[in-house]
Amino acid sequence: MKYKGMDVISLRDLDRDFLDFLLKKTKEVKEGKWQNSCKGMIVASLFFEPSTRTKLSFDTAIAMTGASMIGFSSAATSSTAKGESLSDTIKTIDQYANIIVMRHSIEGAARRAAEVANAPVINAGDGANQHPTQTFLDLFTIYELKGGIENLKIGLMGDLRFGRTIHSLAMALSYYNVELYLISPSILQLPSYYIDYLDSKKIKYHITEDFTQIGKELDVLYCTRIQRERFADPVEYEKVAGSYEISTKNIDSLSKDTIILHPLPRVNEIHSSIDTDPRAKYFYQAKNGVYTRAALLGIIAGNIN
Amino acid sequence: MKYKGMDVISLRDLDRDFLDFLLKKTKEVKEGKWQNSCKGMIVASLFFEPSTRTKLSFDTAIAMTGASMIGFSSAATSSTAKGESLSDTIKTIDQYANIIVMRHSIEGAARRAAEVANAPVINAGDGANQHPTQTFLDLFTIYELKGGIENLKIGLMGDLRFGRTIHSLAMALSYYNVELYLISPSILQLPSYYIDYLDSKKIKYHITEDFTQIGKELDVLYCTRIQRERFADPVEYEKVAGSYEISTKNIDSLSKDTIILHPLPRVNEIHSSIDTDPRAKYFYQAKNGVYTRAALLGIIAGNIN
Amino acid sequence: MKYKGMDVISLRDLDRDFLDFLLKKTKEVKEGKWQNSCKGMIVASLFFEPSTRTKLSFDTAIAMTGASMIGFSSAATSSTAKGESLSDTIKTIDQYANIIVMRHSIEGAARRAAEVANAPVINAGDGANQHPTQTFLDLFTIYELKGGIENLKIGLMGDLRFGRTIHSLAMALSYYNVELYLISPSILQLPSYYIDYLDSKKIKYHITEDFTQIGKELDVLYCTRIQRERFADPVEYEKVAGSYEISTKNIDSLSKDTIILHPLPRVNEIHSSIDTDPRAKYFYQAKNGVYTRAALLGIIAGNIN
Repeated sequence: MKYKGMDVISLRDLDRDFLDFLLKKTKEVKEGKWQNSCKGMIVASLFFEPSTRTKLSFDTAIAMTGASMIGFSSAATSSTAKGESLSDTIKTIDQYANIIVMRHSIEGAARRAAEVANAPVINAGDGANQHPTQTFLDLFTIYELKGGIENLKIGLMGDLRFGRTIHSLAMALSYYNVELYLISPSILQLPSYYIDYLDSKKIKYHITEDFTQIGKELDVLYCTRIQRERFADPVEYEKVAGSYEISTKNIDSLSKDTIILHPLPRVNEIHSSIDTDPRAKYFYQAKNGVYTRAALLGIIAGNIN
Repeated sequence: MKYKGMDVISLRDLDRDFLDFLLKKTKEVKEGKWQNSCKGMIVASLFFEPSTRTKLSFDTAIAMTGASMIGFSSAATSSTAKGESLSDTIKTIDQYANIIVMRHSIEGAARRAAEVANAPVINAGDGANQHPTQTFLDLFTIYELKGGIENLKIGLMGDLRFGRTIHSLAMALSYYNVELYLISPSILQLPSYYIDYLDSKKIKYHITEDFTQIGKELDVLYCTRIQRERFADPVEYEKVAGSYEISTKNIDSLSKDTIILHPLPRVNEIHSSIDTDPRAKYFYQAKNGVYTRAALLGIIAGNIN
Repeated sequence: MKYKGMDVISLRDLDRDFLDFLLKKTKEVKEGKWQNSCKGMIVASLFFEPSTRTKLSFDTAIAMTGASMIGFSSAATSSTAKGESLSDTIKTIDQYANIIVMRHSIEGAARRAAEVANAPVINAGDGANQHPTQTFLDLFTIYELKGGIENLKIGLMGDLRFGRTIHSLAMALSYYNVELYLISPSILQLPSYYIDYLDSKKIKYHITEDFTQIGKELDVLYCTRIQRERFADPVEYEKVAGSYEISTKNIDSLSKDTIILHPLPRVNEIHSSIDTDPRAKYFYQAKNGVYTRAALLGIIAGNIN
């Protein structure tokens, strides 16, 4: 019951105890335990910014818990489109719902909602800021497939500079004794803020531009997209892009046990011919999103403990 | 069973017996009675015109009754966008649903739907015309918080000329022995049609431009927005607007027992610093919308009696 | 269990055994049997192209089976709007759902989805191509109201050249020993491909431009719209259009037992004054869509057998 009614806004608010608890309970949910953990409850699924993937994942999780869902999938059909303040919209929906899940394009929107709502608020992404349940499902997939997180060697690849998913995952992994490989073009390296954070947590890390050199070392390779728009010079982009695309040409530089993860959607960074490779776990990872979110809902409801 | 299958289109079709019954049953629903009153039923929630607040309130009520919901939240995704007549759309959905809830921008649309559908139709707002469930929840909130409606002194404030909510509430209150304070700028006074109606019902009323003078008298102050566009001269608007905005400056002209209601959304007419005042009941009122609508659904289904 | 997990993409994949089975089971579902046939399952209802009628029919069917629904009603709120490939969208939703219902504007989209998804896929319309559940409900309505399909005389009227619904229904009827009346303006006759098909199945048919001449023969008159845009010369359109509009002027050229069907929406091809005629069964037909789809879901789930 410790986490009953808790808001889940940012990874910064959470500690290792919570993460360990969530991982364990997600496993139990996946094994069929804790059904109907939100039976009779109303969960509001408020997507002020569209996101099919995340919305359908949450909606599936809500159905799994036995709760009823209310909500919307774009701001165009919401009251805020008519000039109402976000606070008032949330205060009203707070009257209807037992738990509020929300995605918003503005950084800090979920925090603001949590301040005015009595119901617990789960941040399903606020602009370029936080998207904690993505990190939870990433972490759970590693935990489940590798039998734990301690002592793993994990590659984070792609746009480490701007990638929200990468930043959150790096912070979450820092609660554990892992060794990180930071794989990116030099202009898209992990910002010094996060490097300092890793240092402060005494996390061992390696900075490299080429995953093929260290692929055999990796337990996990977590890939993200490199956006062409990040490069002032398109020629520069073309020069590096290929090095961060996994295909039949380079996949064997990974070990046979390296799992490949990706937050999705992907464009070219993993070739579709890789999808049938047993190491490709990104769709499996998406499925874990449902279990992770169902577990989180039941924990916040106070019914999973 | 008296009201089983009844359409709820306009307050004009209803009588005091029905209102008394609905108020009593809403209270019972709020106390936890009559659960699953629409179990196994399909309720269509058809919002040809977007309205998050009302849609989510109905959707929550539908979930509370145990019914399944089908529907849409804007006409853009409805068949009428493809040129089908409203009658045919309704006749088709009538084949799917046991109860139809609908909001439409055109006055009379709900009445038309009720004519062609076998399923009972609940008007969730038709243009500037009727929105009966708003009135029901307003009435219930007064009834619940004041222990009844008879003999209350009720202030109706803001745009009394164009405000649909005000007109419907005034008519509903006329079934009871109340005393009304009609508080508005002179150009936004209650239309003579409604004044005549109050006279015909022998309702005592006072016309005033300043609530602070009579605030101590009031059991209830029901506020609505004054739209700038109603004034030909913006200077005229600026002169009066402040008098109809409740803030810490003037709230103490109300008695300590005056409850403040508002149909929401609000803009400036109630300052957000008032939200924590114990007399501010407008979000509580929004919550009552769920209970009122759940009771109405169960009554129409013939399962609450 | 024979049809458990089956994709339903095109009528061409199906045989008479399946149709007979579906008709029989739909009747049982309509009689109240096989409730909760998808209890605890998640059905994705993915409308990349809006279609209120079909979506609400499926959503009602999903609710009837006891399944939970996730999905969207237009591509604007879906991930493909952000540039994700359809395959990846489907592969992701495949992680969430037990059955996928999808409508898409592009021919072949449902087939493609079925190839990448593990969950069975039901085609709810792919462009001008296939819409098998429309044919199922058409067939069921004839079967139910006429006590079978063998030996019936069935008129197909309107745009036989471009009408997807007509093409599919003609193919489905060819599994039975029926006699067809193909009623259309000469420039909108059934394409030779389908004529050859009827020949190959030894189906007896008559080609005519005027239903009033043969109306007394018909057990069923299935009407579809003639679009003005099909005619190069608007004068040509005006000349023929009236002959394909059923109204009080010509309805008595039908026998008293001829049932009138239409896939809906209709515009002018059946005058609304006909709606109350006992032979008008097109809204009844729409209701049968719910039972047909509920039966199909239960069959695919492996729980109706």
